[in-house]
Amino acid sequence: MPDKKISFPLVVEPFQEDVNGNLSWSNLGNLILRCASLHAEAHGFGYTYMQTHQRGWVLSRLVLELDSMPVTAEHFSITTWVSRIFRQFTDRNFSITGPDGRTFGHGISTWALIDYATRQPVNLETLPEGGFHNAMLDEVPPIATYGRARCKSTEPAAERDCRFTDLDTNGHVNSIRYIDMALDLFPADWHRAHNVRRIELAYGLEGHDGDRLELYKDDLGPTTEGGSDHRFAIEIRRPADKATLVRVIVVFD
Amino acid sequence: MPDKKISFPLVVEPFQEDVNGNLSWSNLGNLILRCASLHAEAHGFGYTYMQTHQRGWVLSRLVLELDSMPVTAEHFSITTWVSRIFRQFTDRNFSITGPDGRTFGHGISTWALIDYATRQPVNLETLPEGGFHNAMLDEVPPIATYGRARCKSTEPAAERDCRFTDLDTNGHVNSIRYIDMALDLFPADWHRAHNVRRIELAYGLEGHDGDRLELYKDDLGPTTEGGSDHRFAIEIRRPADKATLVRVIVVFD
Repeated sequence: MPDKKISFPLVVEPFQEDVNGNLSWSNLGNLILRCASLHAEAHGFGYTYMQTHQRGWVLSRLVLELDSMPVTAEHFSITTWVSRIFRQFTDRNFSITGPDGRTFGHGISTWALIDYATRQPVNLETLPEGGFHNAMLDEVPPIATYGRARCKSTEPAAERDCRFTDLDTNGHVNSIRYIDMALDLFPADWHRAHNVRRIELAYGLEGHDGDRLELYKDDLGPTTEGGSDHRFAIEIRRPADKATLVRVIVVFD
Repeated sequence: MPDKKISFPLVVEPFQEDVNGNLSWSNLGNLILRCASLHAEAHGFGYTYMQTHQRGWVLSRLVLELDSMPVTAEHFSITTWVSRIFRQFTDRNFSITGPDGRTFGHGISTWALIDYATRQPVNLETLPEGGFHNAMLDEVPPIATYGRARCKSTEPAAERDCRFTDLDTNGHVNSIRYIDMALDLFPADWHRAHNVRRIELAYGLEGHDGDRLELYKDDLGPTTEGGSDHRFAIEIRRPADKATLVRVIVVFD
């Protein structure tokens, strides 16, 4: 059996950085999904399983918290493991570390397994042959789990059309692209002065080609009273059917 | 001395694909730039040289032509070499091949070396110590070089704001992001029916954070009379200063 924790060695390649020379959140996010996909495949519940059983993993929530980002040419690893199954959900965790033992940060993600025929989530606790329990490891990353803050703004801060290059192989807007949409609500000069320390995403309905989205933004102030960080709640809505696609919390230094 | 031609082995990772399961043009483009950067560094005229001499490579033109794209999990290589120096320009070429000797396609790019102090291009033919001539190889890829077609449309097909996640480490809109902008002028259903076979880009002024761009599009019909392909001229303009940022030709099957 493959290890319950699998580490993927990576390096920040030229043209993966943001304007500050850090690995971009977009690239980090897609690398996180890639490692999740490769780990799941190694444990027998990845792409091959999904094709055979006509089921697909759907990302429900994601939180990433990093003290700093690897920079150009820096080596780092993403380590991932599954820690929990609860009803139709499972938690997959991530650690992002450097070769010197340094920890950049951590991630927690929550997934559902959708049956393509019924469009309903499968109960992961009652799958035959022990299901995915064999892969589980009782260990969670040392970061706060999802919060409860909400965006209360009623005036959109920006609009955004979903287009071809936003889509993944399922024809849905790529889950990580919503991170770009959220970060693009802040000008480059803000990003030059403030690093993103934490991003939380709660996914609702999926976006499709041609969708016009509205992005709402609330300044929630510092995380703790008197603190020096900056917390924002962002909501990405599709006015055509009044759907909420994603709720985002971003915390800047 | 490093080889004049250097090959970089790659694989299409999960979440690098477009809606058709092909390596996306955006990812291909950034991989091309990455390989260019690594090859230049190996030959002593890369990032380290530029930092020392306060000069920077600027992409002037790029053409990519591919019969097909590598798909999910497929292995491929990008091979790159420099074939020509003419006044302040140099040509860098690319071949994209499979492990079985299969050729996916080729690329040609033209670069200028800008002196940061004067903002002027350096004459590459008169650099000391033979300049970059030692790295040159007299071989060009078997694809047509840049064409002369122009977009004549006077009504914008779309508008687009430049934002934080569009920017590279220089604070300019990433050269490859303009490919996304061009491809996003076509709905996903068009892309499902027509693969991109060739993209040409001619770069003008650079885009910056907050720029509002207008995208113009002309349907030029088939490449040759009676042909079954579809050729479009696209121009990306910044109305604020009437600048042309990029002229693009896209040919679909």
